[in-house]
Amino acid sequence: MPSNSSIDRNCSVARTLEVLGDRWTFLILREVFFGVHRFDLFQKNLGIARNILADRLKRLVAHDILERQQYQEHPPRYEYRLTERGRDLYGIILGVIRWGDRWLDGGAGAPLLLHHESCGHDLTSVTVCAHCGEEVKPIDVTYRDGPGAIK
Amino acid sequence: MPSNSSIDRNCSVARTLEVLGDRWTFLILREVFFGVHRFDLFQKNLGIARNILADRLKRLVAHDILERQQYQEHPPRYEYRLTERGRDLYGIILGVIRWGDRWLDGGAGAPLLLHHESCGHDLTSVTVCAHCGEEVKPIDVTYRDGPGAIK
Repeated sequence: MPSNSSIDRNCSVARTLEVLGDRWTFLILREVFFGVHRFDLFQKNLGIARNILADRLKRLVAHDILERQQYQEHPPRYEYRLTERGRDLYGIILGVIRWGDRWLDGGAGAPLLLHHESCGHDLTSVTVCAHCGEEVKPIDVTYRDGPGAIK
Repeated sequence: MPSNSSIDRNCSVARTLEVLGDRWTFLILREVFFGVHRFDLFQKNLGIARNILADRLKRLVAHDILERQQYQEHPPRYEYRLTERGRDLYGIILGVIRWGDRWLDGGAGAPLLLHHESCGHDLTSVTVCAHCGEEVKPIDVTYRDGPGAIK
């Protein structure tokens, strides 16, 4: 395990959180994954102030997570679509949904069911090791400096 | 897919983010998963103000994600350990690390390497369907109200 100061300067957790930023950003991404792409509908669904929404969308576009696409010419209107980098956040969103379903359902069951169309079953997501396919537990993982570590 | 207002009121994403709260909370959890358990070391590693750290730790304990354990009697000293609910956040942390490694490494490679001791290979985590084992893609998932949906 690297020294603590090394962990602090190097971790991808900190970098990712600088991009994802805050709770509104996560909720906007949730909406996009659920099929919402337009400013007015984000605003209505989230009850978010328009200036905050505009700021968060601008940040997501600047970080290449969302891209603006024109869908109407007169007058010009735009919607927000996930880039490849943005779509790759889906695993994090799924992890957040699964954890909330498991621990915060108040005994009522999941508020939302996800269905995995490609296998035909309701979806429970799990984070596994890409090599062995086993669910990853904290106790099984050790850490060391990688090639991108700042010495 | 449920109506948009239904999604908004029901989603486990919003509930989970209310608990995880903010960036500091994520970074504290990162430290705990990396083996840091004591107030002074959190403070040193994160460069976080002591009052903010105390507040976030209190919230994590209140939400049953961390628990305080006494490790010294004279004078009494406590450290913070993950509960079962807390350990279950590991998949989210792994997802955040993997995304940062992939998209924010600046071409230098991962700053930190994770090793999966139980299979002997460096770890790349992936979020899969617990039923079929395939990586979950947004395009393969549909949504409907679950038993805990608020009608």
